[in-house]
Amino acid sequence: MNNKNTFADMPAGEFRKLGHQLIDWVADYLEGIERYPVLPNVDYGDIKKKLEDQPPVRSDKLENIISDIDEKIIPGITHWNHPDFMAYFNSTSSGPGILADLVSSGFNVNGMAWHTCPSATELEERMISWYRKIFNLPENFWGIVYDTASTSSLHAIAASREYNPHLKIREKGMAGRNDLPRLRVYASEHAHFSIDKAVVTLGLGIEGIRKIPSDDKFRMIPGALKEAIEEDKTNSWLPCCVVATVGTTSSTSVDPIDEIGTISNEEEIWLHVDAAYAGTAAILPEKQWMFKGIEKADSLVINPHKWMFTPVDFSLLFTKKPEVLKRAFSLSAEYLDTSKDEVTNFMDYGIQLGRRFRSLKPWFIMRYFGVEGLQNRIREHIRLAKMFSEWIESSDDFELSAPVDFGVVCFRAIPKNLSEGEINSFNEKLINKINKTGKLFLSHTKLNGKFILRICISGLRTEEEHVKNAWKLINELSKE
Amino acid sequence: MNNKNTFADMPAGEFRKLGHQLIDWVADYLEGIERYPVLPNVDYGDIKKKLEDQPPVRSDKLENIISDIDEKIIPGITHWNHPDFMAYFNSTSSGPGILADLVSSGFNVNGMAWHTCPSATELEERMISWYRKIFNLPENFWGIVYDTASTSSLHAIAASREYNPHLKIREKGMAGRNDLPRLRVYASEHAHFSIDKAVVTLGLGIEGIRKIPSDDKFRMIPGALKEAIEEDKTNSWLPCCVVATVGTTSSTSVDPIDEIGTISNEEEIWLHVDAAYAGTAAILPEKQWMFKGIEKADSLVINPHKWMFTPVDFSLLFTKKPEVLKRAFSLSAEYLDTSKDEVTNFMDYGIQLGRRFRSLKPWFIMRYFGVEGLQNRIREHIRLAKMFSEWIESSDDFELSAPVDFGVVCFRAIPKNLSEGEINSFNEKLINKINKTGKLFLSHTKLNGKFILRICISGLRTEEEHVKNAWKLINELSKE
Repeated sequence: MNNKNTFADMPAGEFRKLGHQLIDWVADYLEGIERYPVLPNVDYGDIKKKLEDQPPVRSDKLENIISDIDEKIIPGITHWNHPDFMAYFNSTSSGPGILADLVSSGFNVNGMAWHTCPSATELEERMISWYRKIFNLPENFWGIVYDTASTSSLHAIAASREYNPHLKIREKGMAGRNDLPRLRVYASEHAHFSIDKAVVTLGLGIEGIRKIPSDDKFRMIPGALKEAIEEDKTNSWLPCCVVATVGTTSSTSVDPIDEIGTISNEEEIWLHVDAAYAGTAAILPEKQWMFKGIEKADSLVINPHKWMFTPVDFSLLFTKKPEVLKRAFSLSAEYLDTSKDEVTNFMDYGIQLGRRFRSLKPWFIMRYFGVEGLQNRIREHIRLAKMFSEWIESSDDFELSAPVDFGVVCFRAIPKNLSEGEINSFNEKLINKINKTGKLFLSHTKLNGKFILRICISGLRTEEEHVKNAWKLINELSKE
Repeated sequence: MNNKNTFADMPAGEFRKLGHQLIDWVADYLEGIERYPVLPNVDYGDIKKKLEDQPPVRSDKLENIISDIDEKIIPGITHWNHPDFMAYFNSTSSGPGILADLVSSGFNVNGMAWHTCPSATELEERMISWYRKIFNLPENFWGIVYDTASTSSLHAIAASREYNPHLKIREKGMAGRNDLPRLRVYASEHAHFSIDKAVVTLGLGIEGIRKIPSDDKFRMIPGALKEAIEEDKTNSWLPCCVVATVGTTSSTSVDPIDEIGTISNEEEIWLHVDAAYAGTAAILPEKQWMFKGIEKADSLVINPHKWMFTPVDFSLLFTKKPEVLKRAFSLSAEYLDTSKDEVTNFMDYGIQLGRRFRSLKPWFIMRYFGVEGLQNRIREHIRLAKMFSEWIESSDDFELSAPVDFGVVCFRAIPKNLSEGEINSFNEKLINKINKTGKLFLSHTKLNGKFILRICISGLRTEEEHVKNAWKLINELSKE
């Protein structure tokens, strides 16, 4: 085929034919994913070598591109959908999510303002309301969809900077002013580094974040937060934002929002809650305890693309104070002036002007699985994690390193007669051995100076059998 | 179907069946898009009313969801793929782009670090190199893919803030310091407001951006930039970044990069070039003039999702100084420590940790159309815009309001015997009438206080016939 003398898109007939082929390709891929090693066996540069150095002058058959996926791309894929992917906060996609994204790519609308696609804005608003209901959040939590939790938290902390409009940071900025104190953001030592990144990006500097100590269960100590704020105020710092985490990345510990909220509210400091991973568990009545006091929060991030089978990217930011967020981010131009509009224009609440039609994804997913179906899956993951943690507890060769409230288990091998340093390197070697097999992918962390292995069960395709095999493999390799 | 007792994803057979249906749905949608009005005829709230208030407890058939797209979503869609969508910088998707995105949703990898998906990192690196070649950019331009131009420019300006590491903004932030002058970013009065938003987000304030006057062709005046910098330095401002635009949003004017670059380089100020829209035209040898002096730029943004038939989102940031960008954004944690890696970890160069596998899109698009095929399409759009502008110039009822270098024509009706104010309201009424027909969607702007109509020809489905019909409609309605 030669496009040389045509200006059109791919002909509809060809799109149908290749589209059906690719749907089958994706179905085959997901159905047969266990045939692949979960981690690919390549070195840096191996994939690039397979790819043409020069951009193609002439058009190629899409069939050739499809076969190249198998030959050139698959060998370098880390299979996030693989049931043995148990690293990080595993994010898996789902049939309905993939199909919703297909429709979104087909529409290719930009939902920046209401009138640039009313359905994009209004379906997003409706989905926000569904999420608010299934997570049992207060009715005054307004919401918006961004791409990632890093972006959501950046927006929340930017709003916190705007919470005191008399500081005139929006108007005058922060540099070179002698009427502005230094600003401080507080987070537990276990908060995600996206908080640090946001603080640095917003111009508050690494020194602008103060890490609050945590207790033996890795939860922020409210008294320590209170002390830090008092001390800072004495030293002319201006407390700007408190970030509490529900489900920290290392150990999924849950900061006590209720007590932290009382302190933040008393001090009139913006409280942002990062529940990017664990927030999804709020769909279960038995996990509602984790959000006790959530009404005291000013903003909250939950990522359906982490544990709700939603293809990346999809992050939810809720806030009680959308007007503050809007003040921080509404700037426009004649050709897109929204200042007189009485409709929701999501562009006024964020950095990005371009907005993909993301809300189709939860619409498909919540309807296809039903809230009940989602609850069952989340509950099952937690059951499997609990089961794994019981094996750890009843083993003499391993120890549990943190409480298990969600789908993550932190543990380490404790071979006899070794020093702490030797135990650390034993575990480091162990995880490298595990991941090299291609049969299981775990990640690690450090807790109290200890090298910790971390298993995360949140994949849609992970079943009891996979967790059993993982445990078997870990045992075998630790005995080698 | 009831998912109550199952924990799995949609069965593969069902995915195939519904996937084929949805591929056909997208093909039908795009093939028959002209049956829809380009702008929907709805009021705010109309779509929301159609959508269930309560989240679904039980699972529903995906067939029902598909039929709901037609009934509930389509009525509120602004059809960006419609050949009569000629507003803003129209962004259209293409068959190969949609199919690539389907594969990306299927993989659902997170390319944050090299090892979390080597193929995602390496295909992105290879695509960057292809883009560098087709746009004829200097070899020392390193690149990265972000979501939108707003994000790309934010990252560029954040890097500019880090360009003088002795300021220690990364470490100490900007507030409450008496050793830091006020920082200033320079841009033409026609720069996109995403630059203002970035400056405000980064904590430099609205006053931190100084708008430089432009000439009669809406191009930044280098002498005025030079003067502004001198004046600011005298008044203890620290010049931080110059933003030049190649293809401004209002009139697609081209700032003289070469002269601006000389000034920026002499002053050692970071030069960021915003070519989000027009950059794609660099694929044509006859448009290379617009990038004269580009080697003097420190960073450059081009958005393939604007004019290269790539489904949103897809924005390219190039920089000659990736180490500065990395210094601004590399912060990590034990579980993702990349500091010892000798591979590219794109997470170290940006805010977002989650990274969708976007580079599949250009891989499909460049191979399917071929560079030649892309050139033909871009060239055709420019030809159609030129044709339209000639009609304007030979008409007594309209006047051209800006030079036409790309796919955008700025013009206005000039009815006889009206004051300037009356001409403005005439044109405002005219565009409202046009857009209400549902037969054409134009946007507007203001240039020198004049209300200007703006037509953008960059849609993959827009042919000469559509442009002729648009001209006919504009003439008819202006005579009413």
